[in-house]
Amino acid sequence: MISFASDYTEGAHPLILKAFVDTNYEQTPGYGSDRFCDSAKEKIKKVIGKPDAQVFFLVGGTQTNSTVIATMLSDFEGVVSAETGHINAHEAGAVEYTGHKVMSIPHHLGKIDPDELEQKLAIWTGDDSYDHMVHPGMVYISHPTEYGTLYTLDELTRISDVCKKYEIPLFLDGARLGYGLMSLSTDVTIQDIANLVDVFYIGGTKVGALCGEAVVFPKGRAPKHFFTMIKQHGALVAKGRLLGIQFDTLFTDDLYFKISRHAIDMAEKLKAVFIEKGIPFFIDSPTNQQFFIMEDAVLDKIKDKVTYSWWEKYDETHTVVRFATSWATTEENIEMLRQIL
Amino acid sequence: MISFASDYTEGAHPLILKAFVDTNYEQTPGYGSDRFCDSAKEKIKKVIGKPDAQVFFLVGGTQTNSTVIATMLSDFEGVVSAETGHINAHEAGAVEYTGHKVMSIPHHLGKIDPDELEQKLAIWTGDDSYDHMVHPGMVYISHPTEYGTLYTLDELTRISDVCKKYEIPLFLDGARLGYGLMSLSTDVTIQDIANLVDVFYIGGTKVGALCGEAVVFPKGRAPKHFFTMIKQHGALVAKGRLLGIQFDTLFTDDLYFKISRHAIDMAEKLKAVFIEKGIPFFIDSPTNQQFFIMEDAVLDKIKDKVTYSWWEKYDETHTVVRFATSWATTEENIEMLRQIL
Amino acid sequence: MISFASDYTEGAHPLILKAFVDTNYEQTPGYGSDRFCDSAKEKIKKVIGKPDAQVFFLVGGTQTNSTVIATMLSDFEGVVSAETGHINAHEAGAVEYTGHKVMSIPHHLGKIDPDELEQKLAIWTGDDSYDHMVHPGMVYISHPTEYGTLYTLDELTRISDVCKKYEIPLFLDGARLGYGLMSLSTDVTIQDIANLVDVFYIGGTKVGALCGEAVVFPKGRAPKHFFTMIKQHGALVAKGRLLGIQFDTLFTDDLYFKISRHAIDMAEKLKAVFIEKGIPFFIDSPTNQQFFIMEDAVLDKIKDKVTYSWWEKYDETHTVVRFATSWATTEENIEMLRQIL
Amino acid sequence: MISFASDYTEGAHPLILKAFVDTNYEQTPGYGSDRFCDSAKEKIKKVIGKPDAQVFFLVGGTQTNSTVIATMLSDFEGVVSAETGHINAHEAGAVEYTGHKVMSIPHHLGKIDPDELEQKLAIWTGDDSYDHMVHPGMVYISHPTEYGTLYTLDELTRISDVCKKYEIPLFLDGARLGYGLMSLSTDVTIQDIANLVDVFYIGGTKVGALCGEAVVFPKGRAPKHFFTMIKQHGALVAKGRLLGIQFDTLFTDDLYFKISRHAIDMAEKLKAVFIEKGIPFFIDSPTNQQFFIMEDAVLDKIKDKVTYSWWEKYDETHTVVRFATSWATTEENIEMLRQIL
Repeated sequence: MISFASDYTEGAHPLILKAFVDTNYEQTPGYGSDRFCDSAKEKIKKVIGKPDAQVFFLVGGTQTNSTVIATMLSDFEGVVSAETGHINAHEAGAVEYTGHKVMSIPHHLGKIDPDELEQKLAIWTGDDSYDHMVHPGMVYISHPTEYGTLYTLDELTRISDVCKKYEIPLFLDGARLGYGLMSLSTDVTIQDIANLVDVFYIGGTKVGALCGEAVVFPKGRAPKHFFTMIKQHGALVAKGRLLGIQFDTLFTDDLYFKISRHAIDMAEKLKAVFIEKGIPFFIDSPTNQQFFIMEDAVLDKIKDKVTYSWWEKYDETHTVVRFATSWATTEENIEMLRQIL
Repeated sequence: MISFASDYTEGAHPLILKAFVDTNYEQTPGYGSDRFCDSAKEKIKKVIGKPDAQVFFLVGGTQTNSTVIATMLSDFEGVVSAETGHINAHEAGAVEYTGHKVMSIPHHLGKIDPDELEQKLAIWTGDDSYDHMVHPGMVYISHPTEYGTLYTLDELTRISDVCKKYEIPLFLDGARLGYGLMSLSTDVTIQDIANLVDVFYIGGTKVGALCGEAVVFPKGRAPKHFFTMIKQHGALVAKGRLLGIQFDTLFTDDLYFKISRHAIDMAEKLKAVFIEKGIPFFIDSPTNQQFFIMEDAVLDKIKDKVTYSWWEKYDETHTVVRFATSWATTEENIEMLRQIL
Repeated sequence: MISFASDYTEGAHPLILKAFVDTNYEQTPGYGSDRFCDSAKEKIKKVIGKPDAQVFFLVGGTQTNSTVIATMLSDFEGVVSAETGHINAHEAGAVEYTGHKVMSIPHHLGKIDPDELEQKLAIWTGDDSYDHMVHPGMVYISHPTEYGTLYTLDELTRISDVCKKYEIPLFLDGARLGYGLMSLSTDVTIQDIANLVDVFYIGGTKVGALCGEAVVFPKGRAPKHFFTMIKQHGALVAKGRLLGIQFDTLFTDDLYFKISRHAIDMAEKLKAVFIEKGIPFFIDSPTNQQFFIMEDAVLDKIKDKVTYSWWEKYDETHTVVRFATSWATTEENIEMLRQIL
Repeated sequence: MISFASDYTEGAHPLILKAFVDTNYEQTPGYGSDRFCDSAKEKIKKVIGKPDAQVFFLVGGTQTNSTVIATMLSDFEGVVSAETGHINAHEAGAVEYTGHKVMSIPHHLGKIDPDELEQKLAIWTGDDSYDHMVHPGMVYISHPTEYGTLYTLDELTRISDVCKKYEIPLFLDGARLGYGLMSLSTDVTIQDIANLVDVFYIGGTKVGALCGEAVVFPKGRAPKHFFTMIKQHGALVAKGRLLGIQFDTLFTDDLYFKISRHAIDMAEKLKAVFIEKGIPFFIDSPTNQQFFIMEDAVLDKIKDKVTYSWWEKYDETHTVVRFATSWATTEENIEMLRQIL
């Protein structure tokens, strides 16, 4: 049985495990004040080109989204998201649990359109009853999106401009950021992101770490007492080294980028297999998540040999499924998949 | 520089790291549905003697406390805790953030008194204005307490009886449970706890894991859809194996108990050093946390050689400090401490 | 200057003011335990034909919606509403503030479609990731809707059936219930509503009272300690007689129904004026709210003589506006409006 | 049967009812934008001597407390209150429901001591773990307190100074403010309060209105979009005139102060009755609430003739009870009470 169900089916990159072993008996202070966290933060600030950035390490994506959003919004504000945004659809209402509305707008293969965003903001803020309504207080985008798609630099710039015009911060969910940055068809760099957004995070869980997301405020404008609120949200890890060591390793010798590129290379090979087999794309994604329309009869035949993610029903006899590659995907497994198919 | 600042200054028990390495490339499904979690749950159910128990793995203590409390309370209920309870004093208001009051009652070296608890519950529920007040909906105790002290079996039984009488669940915070169970002077076993409480957790972070707390509902009465609410609280880990592997290792060959006993043995040696040096106890704790009253002048002299936890000012010239041992404490470090003192 | 801006431009029906004056010096206990509240509850239970119903009096619509919804949902649940539902669009995020998602579905002139509701519930509950998603825990409808439209008995019955099938309660927001019940073209009675929904409220604020909404649990299944949660939501009035006297008056001699019918009669006359003047309907509503498409040039001319509600831009030169009648609308004002137009 | 159970047993001052009747058919815009609210605000600003103050009208005390506190605190902050503070003891956890801790400190007949407040703030903010703790973000006092006691101008000034030193706002709950200002033994004026606090409210419900509390930000520093958050808290009344007319009447010709003085005069007569009968004070309060220690046997005898508030058990055979006067208390009732006793 091989699995392409997700990019979190294996443990951690071996260099991370090695670092755990090598530093295990070093005594460090808790809650992120250890030297590994310090080092990781410096490396991240350097790679994004923002010496005054603030970096915090949290454990997982949903936690990071709800903590960042709740602490940056005022009580009367909500967060604007694509209908398909992870916070709107697949986080069990974690944002609403903190008291804030997710204000959804239409998506285009997971992306929001800058013009539609501007129109919607104009309608909301121009309403006669605006004082009786939730105020848009942040724009949330994911990059790559939940559909594996990517914003272009132009799109990202225009969304950023709309946010500036309406004076609301832009938050980029980078749970799979590495796979977006290393896509063969992107023109967006991590420095671009640091320039264009107010806060973003660099996903670790899905890019080679056991867990961990690095929240970055590139302009140094983290909410006051953000540390205390991380604690309040249950997102503060006592052994901060768990996160520090992982991100320090990932940002040493470009490991984060190299393993992301490996996943992209594997995704290209995987796509080739499906093309060869004549299985149509549901979305032709430029990142590590690939969506196909498969016959239910075929899925039934392969079900004991390979796992994937169920996405949605396509029609009576077909289903949309997701195959994901990761830092850990091997050419052997791709080859096995070809033979299974 | 050596540290006795806490029981989370080192990484993880080497057997845990070994298990990470050995299983790293095994592909597992996410969110706790992997075989390691399953195995760990079975082992825990066996050790507590409750085949029908439900076990869930969360990441850290504050997160576990607020998730368990918020999901078990109705909106009109609060949680009763000692004034010094971790949830009341040191969790940045995480419980209140979920909408519930912490109803504090006096403590006795960190413990609540069964009779005082009963009196207080009688007063609250008997008040003419009870309908205008927060209803006590849970009793929270920590064992060991924040002062390193332990409930006796008799005390625990009486608290449990009071809870049953008032039909409110009893929750035991076992962030340092191992050190309590392995104390030389306790008469409380983990089976006793499973019999007497409605929910408790077995702390991993402070007992040899990198992170992780195992929440146990010994009677199988977890709140409906507890999994979804773990997600909502940002407490669900995508790579559930991170927690499953750790607890599976800790509950293989009694590792959890053996390393806890080691910490207790080291604590006894540490106490001997302080007795030898004539430094008085602030509390003579039977667990791995030891509290001493030290001269500020002495503290100033040793500050570059050993770290400890500041607890509180004792008087003009003295301070209460905490020295903690753990699974990782070595006899060498104790000896070094002796020489430093 | 005359106003058709809303159905809350005047004070209270004179019989209510008379009752205030007549009973002013009678001493009553607080918080709704007075004889007026008791009497009003009995009258309401009688008129709906449910002797075992529970009735509670709250102050306003948004407050009532958020209190009822928050107290009936579990933490992991959200409330399903038409996109245009008052709770989704015009209550400043009051529901989300209590921690729950409003799960919006398409509307048809303010109404939800029973089949679309069923399809959506099937999709949500059938999703492979359902455990990671907000669970639909209640269906909210307004009757009349925000567009003045009404459900037919058949539609209401089918929505109720869908809710029963999925075992989720149905909540009917009756902020303008009287105007719906007295519509010339409805086949829905208040007894039908009591039979088909799990909770609804009888709006007072917009139907002749100074304030007040009567929440009815026709099956007697109010959440446990609902009174305490009313208090917690800041919705409990110390002088409960304020609400008791008003509802007791409204439900004496069918006053509530009579004044609602008056508003409907006035709405018919108002519609006749617009038809006469050749001003097109935006929606031909069967209740007291009427929506017209008017030329901006005309609106500009009448702006010092009559007030109405701005609804939305229609096109470059036209605007949708709302004219509302109420228990207090006079034939004289309708005639003045005709002359102004 | 006569009642001294509370200061909200009757309806409203007759001048308020007259104003309702006189203005009933005047059409006004909703949500507090009517001319009555405007007029009432101007009168309040004048009487407190703060032309730049902001005034908002809410419905009840618990609602006002939780709305003001929640909107002025940051997420990481709690509100400091006397243990006996209404928000801590008798509001069903309404403050915690909004996510904030009530940080209780000892009381002295309902009052907090300026020195103890300062010591406590010093301890909290000086703690090594301060970043892991709730930050004190507001000080809440009630004046009169829940025990009918009053702060002196000196005490109020010192509390205000402590708040300034720690840069946290001071909030004064004036649910019974009139009775405090008109006490025979106070040296605190409403102008003093406006000078010394950051926000306070002038209670209407317990001082002659049917409902209503006037929230005043004397320095004009209301939270941004406070109106929207009033709505979000369910505290916005559609017919704002309900509150505007009441406060406009209360602040015309000093009515608020005159009727408060009447209650004080009646309280003095009531005290004289108890002194004459040799019934001891539990607290000798300078306001309209009087607390006595009465024999249970006596209470049993009078129970069909007079109602009062149960306060607490005193000893085996005695109970503490509260007798309250109000704007509506008559000399006849006091005389009847004397004869009953």
